Amino acid sequence: MSSSTSLDKLIDALCCLPGVGRKSAQRMALYLIDKNRQGASEIASSLSEALEKVQHCELCRNFSDEPQCNICNNPKRQEDLLCVVETPADVMAIEASGSFQGKYFVLLGKLSPIDGIGPDELGLDILRKRLGLERIKEIILATNPTIEGEITAQYIADIASEYNIQTSRIAHGVPVGGELEYVDSGTLSRAFDGRQTITNR
Amino acid sequence: MSSSTSLDKLIDALCCLPGVGRKSAQRMALYLIDKNRQGASEIASSLSEALEKVQHCELCRNFSDEPQCNICNNPKRQEDLLCVVETPADVMAIEASGSFQGKYFVLLGKLSPIDGIGPDELGLDILRKRLGLERIKEIILATNPTIEGEITAQYIADIASEYNIQTSRIAHGVPVGGELEYVDSGTLSRAFDGRQTITNR
Repeated sequence: MSSSTSLDKLIDALCCLPGVGRKSAQRMALYLIDKNRQGASEIASSLSEALEKVQHCELCRNFSDEPQCNICNNPKRQEDLLCVVETPADVMAIEASGSFQGKYFVLLGKLSPIDGIGPDELGLDILRKRLGLERIKEIILATNPTIEGEITAQYIADIASEYNIQTSRIAHGVPVGGELEYVDSGTLSRAFDGRQTITNR
Repeated sequence: MSSSTSLDKLIDALCCLPGVGRKSAQRMALYLIDKNRQGASEIASSLSEALEKVQHCELCRNFSDEPQCNICNNPKRQEDLLCVVETPADVMAIEASGSFQGKYFVLLGKLSPIDGIGPDELGLDILRKRLGLERIKEIILATNPTIEGEITAQYIADIASEYNIQTSRIAHGVPVGGELEYVDSGTLSRAFDGRQTITNR
Protein backbone atom coordinates (compact mmCIF):
# COMPACT_ATOMS: atom_id res chain seq x y z
CA MET A 1 0.00 0.00 0.00
CA SER A 2 1.37 3.37 -0.96
CA SER A 3 0.17 6.67 0.44
CA SER A 4 -2.36 7.19 -2.38
CA THR A 5 -5.25 4.84 -3.14
CA SER A 6 -5.63 5.93 -6.75
CA LEU A 7 -1.88 5.40 -7.34
CA ASP A 8 -2.21 1.87 -5.92
CA LYS A 9 -5.12 1.21 -8.26
CA LEU A 10 -3.09 2.45 -11.23
CA ILE A 11 -0.16 0.18 -10.29
CA ASP A 12 -2.54 -2.81 -10.01
CA ALA A 13 -4.03 -1.99 -13.42
CA LEU A 14 -0.61 -1.66 -15.10
CA CYS A 15 0.40 -5.10 -13.78
CA CYS A 16 -1.90 -6.66 -16.40
CA LEU A 17 0.40 -5.53 -19.23
CA PRO A 18 2.45 -8.32 -20.81
CA GLY A 19 6.00 -8.50 -19.45
CA VAL A 20 5.24 -5.99 -16.69
CA GLY A 21 5.62 -7.09 -13.07
CA ARG A 22 4.77 -5.17 -9.93
CA LYS A 23 8.09 -3.35 -9.79
CA SER A 24 7.90 -2.14 -13.40
CA ALA A 25 4.24 -1.18 -12.95
CA GLN A 26 5.22 0.94 -9.96
CA ARG A 27 8.03 2.56 -11.92
CA MET A 28 5.65 3.31 -14.81
CA ALA A 29 2.94 4.72 -12.52
CA LEU A 30 5.36 7.03 -10.69
CA TYR A 31 6.89 8.14 -13.97
CA LEU A 32 3.49 8.94 -15.48
CA ILE A 33 2.11 10.80 -12.46
CA ASP A 34 5.33 12.53 -11.47
CA LYS A 35 7.25 13.20 -14.66
CA ASN A 36 4.99 12.88 -17.69
CA ARG A 37 1.37 13.82 -17.06
CA GLN A 38 1.01 14.82 -20.70
CA GLY A 39 2.06 11.30 -21.79
CA ALA A 40 -0.23 9.80 -19.15
CA SER A 41 -3.29 11.60 -20.42
CA GLU A 42 -2.35 10.64 -23.99
CA ILE A 43 -2.23 6.97 -22.98
CA ALA A 44 -5.58 7.26 -21.19
CA SER A 45 -7.30 9.01 -24.09
CA SER A 46 -5.79 6.89 -26.88
CA LEU A 47 -6.66 3.74 -24.94
CA SER A 48 -10.29 4.82 -24.53
CA GLU A 49 -10.44 5.84 -28.19
CA ALA A 50 -8.95 2.53 -29.39
CA LEU A 51 -11.31 0.53 -27.16
CA GLU A 52 -14.23 2.39 -28.65
CA LYS A 53 -13.17 2.45 -32.30
CA VAL A 54 -11.07 -0.63 -33.06
CA GLN A 55 -13.04 -3.39 -34.75
CA HIS A 56 -12.17 -6.04 -37.32
CA CYS A 57 -12.04 -5.09 -41.01
CA GLU A 58 -14.87 -6.85 -42.84
CA LEU A 59 -12.56 -7.72 -45.74
CA CYS A 60 -9.29 -8.84 -44.10
CA ARG A 61 -10.26 -9.24 -40.41
CA ASN A 62 -7.32 -7.06 -39.35
CA PHE A 63 -7.89 -4.31 -36.77
CA SER A 64 -9.52 -1.21 -38.21
CA ASP A 65 -11.25 1.97 -37.10
CA GLU A 66 -13.69 1.80 -39.99
CA PRO A 67 -15.66 -1.17 -41.38
CA GLN A 68 -12.82 -1.52 -43.94
CA CYS A 69 -9.19 -1.00 -42.94
CA ASN A 70 -6.57 1.43 -44.26
CA ILE A 71 -4.74 -1.32 -46.14
CA CYS A 72 -7.80 -2.83 -47.85
CA ASN A 73 -8.91 0.67 -48.86
CA ASN A 74 -5.51 1.77 -50.15
CA PRO A 75 -5.75 2.00 -53.97
CA LYS A 76 -1.96 1.86 -54.28
CA ARG A 77 -1.75 -1.72 -52.97
CA GLN A 78 -1.64 -4.58 -55.49
CA GLU A 79 -5.14 -6.01 -55.86
CA ASP A 80 -4.06 -9.40 -57.17
CA LEU A 81 -1.72 -10.47 -54.36
CA LEU A 82 -3.12 -11.73 -51.07
CA CYS A 83 -0.97 -12.61 -48.07
CA VAL A 84 -2.58 -14.85 -45.44
CA VAL A 85 -1.24 -14.45 -41.88
CA GLU A 86 -2.28 -15.62 -38.43
CA THR A 87 -2.35 -12.36 -36.45
CA PRO A 88 -2.45 -8.54 -36.78
CA ALA A 89 1.09 -8.54 -35.29
CA ASP A 90 2.24 -10.55 -38.32
CA VAL A 91 0.81 -7.86 -40.62
CA MET A 92 2.68 -5.19 -38.65
CA ALA A 93 5.95 -7.14 -38.96
CA ILE A 94 5.52 -7.58 -42.73
CA GLU A 95 4.52 -3.92 -43.16
CA ALA A 96 7.59 -2.84 -41.19
CA SER A 97 9.81 -4.86 -43.54
CA GLY A 98 8.24 -3.10 -46.54
CA SER A 99 8.61 -6.30 -48.54
CA PHE A 100 4.98 -6.77 -49.54
CA GLN A 101 2.71 -4.41 -51.46
CA GLY A 102 -0.39 -6.57 -51.83
CA LYS A 103 -3.33 -7.05 -49.49
CA TYR A 104 -3.82 -9.24 -46.45
CA PHE A 105 -6.13 -11.76 -44.94
CA VAL A 106 -5.80 -12.23 -41.17
CA LEU A 107 -6.95 -15.59 -39.79
CA LEU A 108 -6.86 -14.42 -36.13
CA GLY A 109 -5.65 -17.91 -35.22
CA LYS A 110 -4.74 -21.23 -36.80
CA LEU A 111 -6.53 -24.53 -37.28
CA SER A 112 -6.37 -26.31 -33.96
CA PRO A 113 -9.13 -28.91 -33.42
CA ILE A 114 -7.91 -29.50 -29.85
CA ASP A 115 -8.76 -25.87 -28.99
CA GLY A 116 -12.00 -26.02 -30.97
CA ILE A 117 -10.67 -23.76 -33.73
CA GLY A 118 -11.95 -24.90 -37.11
CA PRO A 119 -12.39 -23.22 -40.54
CA ASP A 120 -15.36 -21.17 -39.28
CA GLU A 121 -13.34 -19.50 -36.51
CA LEU A 122 -10.68 -18.43 -39.04
CA GLY A 123 -13.17 -16.58 -41.23
CA LEU A 124 -12.53 -18.87 -44.18
CA ASP A 125 -16.08 -18.18 -45.43
CA ILE A 126 -15.06 -14.52 -45.83
CA LEU A 127 -11.89 -15.66 -47.61
CA ARG A 128 -13.87 -17.88 -50.00
CA LYS A 129 -16.16 -14.97 -50.82
CA ARG A 130 -13.16 -12.77 -51.61
CA LEU A 131 -11.55 -15.47 -53.75
CA GLY A 132 -14.80 -15.74 -55.72
CA LEU A 133 -15.31 -11.99 -56.18
CA GLU A 134 -11.84 -10.44 -56.44
CA ARG A 135 -9.30 -11.02 -59.20
CA ILE A 136 -6.60 -12.53 -56.98
CA LYS A 137 -3.71 -14.11 -58.89
CA GLU A 138 -1.57 -15.41 -56.05
CA ILE A 139 -2.03 -16.25 -52.40
CA ILE A 140 1.10 -16.07 -50.28
CA LEU A 141 0.75 -18.26 -47.21
CA ALA A 142 2.65 -16.65 -44.34
CA THR A 143 1.33 -18.67 -41.41
CA ASN A 144 3.92 -19.64 -38.81
CA PRO A 145 6.10 -22.70 -39.44
CA THR A 146 4.49 -24.65 -36.59
CA ILE A 147 2.49 -27.85 -37.05
CA GLU A 148 -0.83 -25.97 -36.81
CA GLY A 149 0.48 -23.21 -39.07
CA GLU A 150 1.53 -25.71 -41.72
CA ILE A 151 -1.80 -27.54 -41.59
CA THR A 152 -3.62 -24.20 -41.86
CA ALA A 153 -1.47 -23.23 -44.86
CA GLN A 154 -2.21 -26.57 -46.54
CA TYR A 155 -5.94 -26.18 -45.85
CA ILE A 156 -6.01 -22.73 -47.44
CA ALA A 157 -3.91 -23.95 -50.39
CA ASP A 158 -6.61 -26.59 -51.00
CA ILE A 159 -9.33 -23.89 -50.96
CA ALA A 160 -7.29 -21.74 -53.37
CA SER A 161 -6.92 -24.64 -55.80
CA GLU A 162 -10.74 -24.86 -55.98
CA TYR A 163 -10.67 -21.31 -57.34
CA ASN A 164 -7.65 -22.05 -59.57
CA ILE A 165 -5.54 -19.50 -57.72
CA GLN A 166 -1.79 -20.00 -57.50
CA THR A 167 -0.48 -20.34 -53.93
CA SER A 168 2.99 -20.00 -52.48
CA ARG A 169 4.53 -20.40 -49.05
CA ILE A 170 7.06 -17.91 -47.68
CA ALA A 171 10.58 -19.33 -47.44
CA HIS A 172 11.82 -20.76 -44.17
CA GLY A 173 15.52 -21.11 -43.51
CA VAL A 174 18.51 -19.61 -41.77
CA PRO A 175 17.69 -16.02 -40.68
CA VAL A 176 19.82 -13.30 -42.24
CA GLY A 177 22.58 -12.40 -39.81
CA GLY A 178 22.10 -15.74 -38.05
CA GLU A 179 24.93 -18.22 -37.63
CA LEU A 180 24.50 -21.80 -38.73
CA GLU A 181 26.00 -22.98 -35.45
CA TYR A 182 23.10 -21.55 -33.45
CA VAL A 183 20.24 -22.39 -35.79
CA ASP A 184 17.94 -25.22 -34.63
CA SER A 185 17.84 -28.44 -36.62
CA GLY A 186 14.24 -27.95 -37.85
CA THR A 187 15.18 -24.64 -39.44
CA LEU A 188 18.38 -26.11 -40.90
CA SER A 189 16.47 -28.98 -42.42
CA ARG A 190 14.00 -26.47 -43.99
CA ALA A 191 16.96 -24.45 -45.27
CA PHE A 192 18.36 -27.54 -47.04
CA ASP A 193 14.95 -28.55 -48.44
CA GLY A 194 14.36 -25.05 -49.76
CA ARG A 195 17.84 -24.59 -51.27
CA GLN A 196 17.96 -22.62 -54.49
CA THR A 197 20.17 -23.22 -57.50
CA ILE A 198 22.77 -20.56 -58.21
CA THR A 199 22.88 -19.99 -61.94
CA ASN A 200 26.28 -19.46 -63.53
CA ARG A 201 26.67 -16.08 -65.10
CA MET B 1 1.55 2.37 -40.00
CA SER B 2 -0.85 -0.39 -39.06
CA SER B 3 -4.34 -0.86 -40.48
CA SER B 4 -5.97 1.16 -37.68
CA THR B 5 -5.20 4.80 -36.92
CA SER B 6 -6.36 4.64 -33.31
CA LEU B 7 -4.19 1.57 -32.71
CA ASP B 8 -1.18 3.46 -34.12
CA LYS B 9 -1.94 6.37 -31.79
CA LEU B 10 -2.12 3.98 -28.83
CA ILE B 11 1.24 2.42 -29.75
CA ASP B 12 2.80 5.89 -30.02
CA ALA B 13 1.39 6.85 -26.61
CA LEU B 14 2.64 3.65 -24.93
CA CYS B 15 6.17 4.32 -26.25
CA CYS B 16 6.51 7.09 -23.63
CA LEU B 17 6.55 4.53 -20.80
CA PRO B 18 9.97 3.98 -19.20
CA GLY B 19 11.74 0.90 -20.57
CA VAL B 20 9.16 0.42 -23.32
CA GLY B 21 10.32 0.58 -26.93
CA ARG B 22 8.24 0.47 -30.09
CA LYS B 23 8.13 -3.33 -30.23
CA SER B 24 6.95 -3.71 -26.62
CA ALA B 25 4.44 -0.88 -27.07
CA GLN B 26 3.01 -2.72 -30.07
CA ARG B 27 2.82 -5.97 -28.10
CA MET B 28 1.07 -4.18 -25.22
CA ALA B 29 -1.40 -2.41 -27.52
CA LEU B 30 -2.34 -5.62 -29.35
CA TYR B 31 -2.66 -7.49 -26.07
CA LEU B 32 -4.91 -4.81 -24.57
CA ILE B 33 -7.19 -4.44 -27.59
CA ASP B 34 -7.26 -8.09 -28.58
CA LYS B 35 -7.00 -10.10 -25.38
CA ASN B 36 -7.73 -7.94 -22.36
CA ARG B 37 -10.23 -5.16 -22.99
CA GLN B 38 -11.28 -5.29 -19.35
CA GLY B 39 -7.68 -4.63 -18.27
CA ALA B 40 -7.38 -1.90 -20.90
CA SER B 41 -10.38 0.02 -19.63
CA GLU B 42 -9.10 -0.39 -16.06
CA ILE B 43 -5.79 1.18 -17.07
CA ALA B 44 -7.56 4.04 -18.87
CA SER B 45 -9.91 4.77 -15.98
CA SER B 46 -7.34 4.40 -13.18
CA LEU B 47 -4.94 6.60 -15.12
CA SER B 48 -7.55 9.34 -15.54
CA GLU B 49 -8.53 9.02 -11.88
CA ALA B 50 -4.92 9.21 -10.69
CA LEU B 51 -4.20 12.21 -12.91
CA GLU B 52 -7.18 13.95 -11.43
CA LYS B 53 -6.77 12.99 -7.77
CA VAL B 54 -3.07 12.54 -7.02
CA GLN B 55 -1.51 15.55 -5.32
CA HIS B 56 1.23 16.00 -2.74
CA CYS B 57 0.45 15.47 0.94
CA GLU B 58 0.73 18.80 2.77
CA LEU B 59 2.54 17.13 5.69
CA CYS B 60 5.03 14.74 4.06
CA ARG B 61 4.95 15.75 0.35
CA ASN B 62 4.35 12.13 -0.70
CA PHE B 63 1.65 11.39 -3.28
CA SER B 64 -1.84 11.45 -1.84
CA ASP B 65 -5.48 11.54 -2.98
CA GLU B 66 -6.44 13.80 -0.08
CA PRO B 67 -4.69 16.91 1.32
CA GLN B 68 -3.10 14.54 3.87
CA CYS B 69 -1.90 11.07 2.88
CA ASN B 70 -2.88 7.63 4.21
CA ILE B 71 0.39 7.26 6.11
CA CYS B 72 0.34 10.69 7.81
CA ASN B 73 -3.29 10.08 8.80
CA ASN B 74 -2.72 6.55 10.11
CA PRO B 75 -3.04 6.68 13.92
CA LYS B 76 -1.20 3.36 14.25
CA ARG B 77 2.08 4.80 12.95
CA GLN B 78 4.66 6.02 15.46
CA GLU B 79 4.38 9.79 15.83
CA ASP B 80 7.86 10.38 17.16
CA LEU B 81 9.89 8.76 14.37
CA LEU B 82 10.39 10.57 11.05
CA CYS B 83 12.15 9.04 8.06
CA VAL B 84 13.42 11.48 5.42
CA VAL B 85 13.69 10.10 1.87
CA GLU B 86 14.26 11.54 -1.58
CA THR B 87 11.34 10.12 -3.57
CA PRO B 88 7.90 8.47 -3.25
CA ALA B 89 9.50 5.33 -4.74
CA ASP B 90 11.81 5.21 -1.69
CA VAL B 91 8.75 5.27 0.60
CA MET B 92 7.24 2.38 -1.38
CA ALA B 93 10.46 0.36 -1.06
CA ILE B 94 10.65 0.96 2.72
CA GLU B 95 6.93 0.18 3.15
CA ALA B 96 7.37 -3.05 1.19
CA SER B 97 10.18 -4.08 3.57
CA GLY B 98 7.89 -3.48 6.56
CA SER B 99 10.91 -2.36 8.56
CA PHE B 100 9.66 1.09 9.54
CA GLN B 101 6.53 2.06 11.45
CA GLY B 102 7.02 5.80 11.81
CA LYS B 103 6.12 8.63 9.46
CA TYR B 104 7.87 10.04 6.42
CA PHE B 105 9.07 13.24 4.89
CA VAL B 106 9.65 13.14 1.13
CA LEU B 107 12.11 15.69 -0.25
CA LEU B 108 11.13 15.09 -3.90
CA GLY B 109 14.78 15.59 -4.81
CA LYS B 110 18.13 16.28 -3.21
CA LEU B 111 20.26 19.37 -2.72
CA SER B 112 21.94 20.05 -6.04
CA PRO B 113 22.99 23.67 -6.59
CA ILE B 114 24.09 22.84 -10.15
CA ASP B 115 20.47 21.94 -11.03
CA GLY B 116 19.13 24.90 -9.06
CA ILE B 117 17.72 22.71 -6.29
CA GLY B 118 18.12 24.36 -2.92
CA PRO B 119 16.44 24.03 0.49
CA ASP B 120 13.26 25.73 -0.78
CA GLU B 121 12.70 23.16 -3.54
CA LEU B 122 12.95 20.31 -1.01
CA GLY B 123 10.16 21.68 1.18
CA LEU B 124 12.49 22.18 4.14
CA ASP B 125 10.26 25.02 5.36
CA ILE B 126 7.45 22.45 5.78
CA LEU B 127 9.90 20.14 7.57
CA ARG B 128 10.98 22.93 9.95
CA LYS B 129 7.35 23.66 10.75
CA ARG B 130 6.75 19.98 11.57
CA LEU B 131 9.90 19.79 13.71
CA GLY B 132 8.64 22.82 15.66
CA LEU B 133 5.07 21.56 16.12
CA GLU B 134 5.27 17.76 16.40
CA ARG B 135 6.92 15.78 19.15
CA ILE B 136 9.51 14.06 16.94
CA LYS B 137 12.22 12.20 18.89
CA GLU B 138 14.35 10.86 16.06
CA ILE B 139 14.90 11.66 12.39
CA ILE B 140 16.17 8.77 10.28
CA LEU B 141 17.99 10.07 7.22
CA ALA B 142 17.42 7.64 4.34
CA THR B 143 18.62 9.73 1.41
CA ASN B 144 20.66 7.86 -1.19
CA PRO B 145 24.39 7.31 -0.53
CA THR B 146 25.40 9.61 -3.39
CA ILE B 147 27.34 12.84 -2.93
CA GLU B 148 24.15 14.94 -3.18
CA GLY B 149 22.28 12.52 -0.92
CA GLU B 150 24.99 12.74 1.76
CA ILE B 151 25.10 16.54 1.59
CA THR B 152 21.30 16.66 1.86
CA ALA B 153 21.42 14.31 4.88
CA GLN B 154 24.03 16.50 6.56
CA TYR B 155 22.00 19.64 5.85
CA ILE B 156 18.89 18.12 7.45
CA ALA B 157 20.91 16.82 10.40
CA ASP B 158 22.04 20.43 11.00
CA ILE B 159 18.42 21.63 10.95
CA ALA B 160 17.40 18.85 13.37
CA SER B 161 20.14 19.84 15.82
CA GLU B 162 18.61 23.35 15.96
CA TYR B 163 15.47 21.68 17.33
CA ASN B 164 17.50 19.31 19.58
CA ILE B 165 16.20 16.27 17.72
CA GLN B 166 18.34 13.16 17.51
CA THR B 167 19.26 12.13 13.96
CA SER B 168 20.53 8.89 12.50
CA ARG B 169 21.59 7.70 9.07
CA ILE B 170 20.52 4.29 7.71
CA ALA B 171 23.40 1.79 7.48
CA HIS B 172 25.25 1.34 4.22
CA GLY B 173 27.23 -1.79 3.56
CA VAL B 174 27.26 -5.16 1.83
CA PRO B 175 23.69 -6.04 0.73
CA VAL B 176 22.21 -9.17 2.31
CA GLY B 177 22.65 -12.05 -0.13
CA GLY B 178 25.42 -10.12 -1.90
CA GLU B 179 28.89 -11.52 -2.30
CA LEU B 180 31.91 -9.50 -1.20
CA GLU B 181 33.63 -10.34 -4.48
CA TYR B 182 31.06 -8.41 -6.49
CA VAL B 183 30.52 -5.45 -4.16
CA ASP B 184 32.02 -2.14 -5.32
CA SER B 185 34.84 -0.58 -3.34
CA GLY B 186 32.78 2.40 -2.14
CA THR B 187 30.24 0.08 -0.52
CA LEU B 188 32.99 -2.11 0.95
CA SER B 189 34.69 0.91 2.47
CA ARG B 190 31.34 1.98 4.03
CA ALA B 191 30.87 -1.56 5.33
CA PHE B 192 34.25 -1.40 7.10
CA ASP B 193 33.62 2.09 8.50
CA GLY B 194 30.23 1.02 9.81
CA ARG B 195 31.39 -2.27 11.32
CA GLN B 196 29.68 -3.25 14.55
CA THR B 197 31.22 -4.93 17.56
CA ILE B 198 30.07 -8.47 18.29
CA THR B 199 29.61 -8.81 22.02
CA ASN B 200 30.72 -12.07 23.60
CA ARG B 201 27.89 -13.99 25.17
